[in-house]
Amino acid sequence: MSEQRARVDARKLIDFSAKALQKLGAPEEDAMITAKMLVACDLRGVESHGVAHLNMFYARRIKRGIINVTPEPRILSQSPSAATMDGDNGLGFVVGYRAMNEAIRMAQETGAGFVAVRNSTHFGAAAYYAMMALEHDMIGVSMTNNIPIVVAPGSSKPALSTNPLAVAVPAGKRPPFVLDMATSAVAGGKLEIAGRAGGTIPEGWLIDGEGKPVTDLSKRVWGEGGLLPLGGTPSHGAYKGFGLGLIVDILSGILSGATISTLMKPPPEARGNYSDHFFGALRIASFLPVDKFKQSMDDAIEALEALPTLPGVDKVSVPGVYEAEIIKDRQANGIPLDAKVIDDLKALAEEFNIEFAP
Amino acid sequence: MSEQRARVDARKLIDFSAKALQKLGAPEEDAMITAKMLVACDLRGVESHGVAHLNMFYARRIKRGIINVTPEPRILSQSPSAATMDGDNGLGFVVGYRAMNEAIRMAQETGAGFVAVRNSTHFGAAAYYAMMALEHDMIGVSMTNNIPIVVAPGSSKPALSTNPLAVAVPAGKRPPFVLDMATSAVAGGKLEIAGRAGGTIPEGWLIDGEGKPVTDLSKRVWGEGGLLPLGGTPSHGAYKGFGLGLIVDILSGILSGATISTLMKPPPEARGNYSDHFFGALRIASFLPVDKFKQSMDDAIEALEALPTLPGVDKVSVPGVYEAEIIKDRQANGIPLDAKVIDDLKALAEEFNIEFAP
Repeated sequence: MSEQRARVDARKLIDFSAKALQKLGAPEEDAMITAKMLVACDLRGVESHGVAHLNMFYARRIKRGIINVTPEPRILSQSPSAATMDGDNGLGFVVGYRAMNEAIRMAQETGAGFVAVRNSTHFGAAAYYAMMALEHDMIGVSMTNNIPIVVAPGSSKPALSTNPLAVAVPAGKRPPFVLDMATSAVAGGKLEIAGRAGGTIPEGWLIDGEGKPVTDLSKRVWGEGGLLPLGGTPSHGAYKGFGLGLIVDILSGILSGATISTLMKPPPEARGNYSDHFFGALRIASFLPVDKFKQSMDDAIEALEALPTLPGVDKVSVPGVYEAEIIKDRQANGIPLDAKVIDDLKALAEEFNIEFAP
Repeated sequence: MSEQRARVDARKLIDFSAKALQKLGAPEEDAMITAKMLVACDLRGVESHGVAHLNMFYARRIKRGIINVTPEPRILSQSPSAATMDGDNGLGFVVGYRAMNEAIRMAQETGAGFVAVRNSTHFGAAAYYAMMALEHDMIGVSMTNNIPIVVAPGSSKPALSTNPLAVAVPAGKRPPFVLDMATSAVAGGKLEIAGRAGGTIPEGWLIDGEGKPVTDLSKRVWGEGGLLPLGGTPSHGAYKGFGLGLIVDILSGILSGATISTLMKPPPEARGNYSDHFFGALRIASFLPVDKFKQSMDDAIEALEALPTLPGVDKVSVPGVYEAEIIKDRQANGIPLDAKVIDDLKALAEEFNIEFAP
């Protein structure tokens, strides 16, 4: 996060990403949806899920034909507050966007809306979809599965994906509460960052094939062992992280008509690409007046931030507050990008003959 | 869990508990609802929330007038899939039972139903309410707040209750998936058990007022420090446990029109009594055929149980499977009770002149 990095205007990045996605075959609207979501991650400081993924992750997969860029997601089952969708192997962003909008539409009518989605692909950061509910004065929920890299307590064979879940809750004058968490002890992205920064990680993140802690990433044997569930060890609640991961898999995989990560059998070339999702929205006004709710949220956030802190801690951090500050800075001053990411986007610009002047 | 304990027939315990609750002033139906829930906890092996609490916890509070045994819970706001309820300071079991039934009724009509409840009291184990959804072929959700005993990361002042959440999911031939977890590293009950068993606890459960780990419970200073959130330390995901706890508080406390644990101001005599809850149900048939769902759940549970295990581990434990075995044993052979619990129930029998012959 060195601030020696060049800063690029968010609108410029959205425009560029949308053009690149159109060149890759995505319809204009889908390209714009996806571009906005990628850049929204960079704006929130979640750089592991931003434009850094555009070329090396999504463009590569689209070119290899393992993502359908002209999907026709369809509703398979519909009740007033519940639906199942087939994603037609489409770009997860586009499928997720449509499914979350359907959840919001239902919640507008009945107070609650939930959509389980199968046959989709990697959808980026879960937070984005949950946050789509905010402008409608709703609480949003979003989760996804993927290929297994997290072990079950008592086993060293990956059983579940990091199965992230996100919940977004609007506040009044304060930033919204936004929690976006892997149900593993750490997200895969944190391992990547540690790998770049010398490769030493704390005990409690990763085990090897014999169940022993891995603390030196250079000694990790790929395909053996896996990430630990949130909680880490059985005595510290690993079964809770595992249970939460399973709930994500049940709602995303089983309720959508697919299956859990453990039983996914993606073809080797699509490893890490296939995903099922689950989205939900709760309409606040169906429970109580929105103003009262938002005032209570502000009061709660302020009470938490006013808690006495331990030495070295400025204030208690409520999920979403820190990210809101990053958004403000980056909207005003641009998004800092690593030289490597800029090179990667320039390569894409050259390939497709699109202007990209960061 | 010594099996030297006397075993008492579950029906006998329900009958006795219901009679005692009627003597305490509860209407017949409410007494039976509560009795069944208490004994259901003992049947599942969750003895911390079973009949051991009847006299020393609930009867004492009812006598002190801090629980309303003839509540008239009322719906404050109603949409097709969402409602808010005022619990009228009633026994949490009775309030929770009615609210969860309302969630189920709405889910039957629309596919999803959610009820936020304020002004209630301690409702026992969260799992029971989530499990009420199972016989309706629904996924059930249940959560509650209470007084703060869990710290926020970076603080040593209790901010949230252990804010448990439970999710129950039906399977086919296999037992249902049932996760019932405190969002703290451990539930309060585990500290109690450790306290009785010598008082040594692992690092990562509890901190003192200076943020230092407490491992010797005899040195704990009451009122200083608190339980750590699930994840324990910031590097191992404490902000996730804290975030999950906050979600429980937002849905139970704020969405119901009350507030979060941090801001609760119960009168001293009602400390640990006041609670808000949140209940939900998702109707599986609104998403996909129930048979297909249940078959997929069975397949998933079997795949998880077939995972290779580390030395000393028999098989991977799927939440709910172990409890189902305990239920089977206790339904057939009776519920083992500590001599102390039997004495406590006998005292209640004598006080109210009810027969109790364990």
